Amino acid sequence: MQYHAEVTIGLKSGMLDPEATTIKKALEHLGFPTDSLEMQKRFVLELDAPSRDAAQSQVDEMCRRLLANPVIHNFDIEIEESG
Amino acid sequence: MQYHAEVTIGLKSGMLDPEATTIKKALEHLGFPTDSLEMQKRFVLELDAPSRDAAQSQVDEMCRRLLANPVIHNFDIEIEESG
Repeated sequence: MQYHAEVTIGLKSGMLDPEATTIKKALEHLGFPTDSLEMQKRFVLELDAPSRDAAQSQVDEMCRRLLANPVIHNFDIEIEESG
Repeated sequence: MQYHAEVTIGLKSGMLDPEATTIKKALEHLGFPTDSLEMQKRFVLELDAPSRDAAQSQVDEMCRRLLANPVIHNFDIEIEESG
């Protein structure tokens, strides 16, 4: 079965994100004040797996081993059947 | 009124993404083959605006002027009332 996975990776709360701070300031200078701004990374992938649970655990392992750094990142995985 | 906006920015189809290609290969080497892998950037922001339409057009303008490069990126904006 083929599955469609969306992985959203962001910094854990309390971690500083100087890139987001800079972008927030730049938006202010352009006349677009915001109350908060966070940046996240997102991976959209298609994979084969025998079941939804297997797909979920494969993607979870991908996050832990390569996509995210579990020390500083939170990640969220959404899986849907596709095709 | 305060609004919560989620902006998802990705490369237009046909644009090469060497970082995504490298990550796809690295996952394969780790034993996680995928049929496709795309990377996106995501901004999660809170802003004040007089109406939902105003919030939408403010965020659209932020994307065009700073967050995305309309020549190479597609962007998608989701707005919700918050607080």
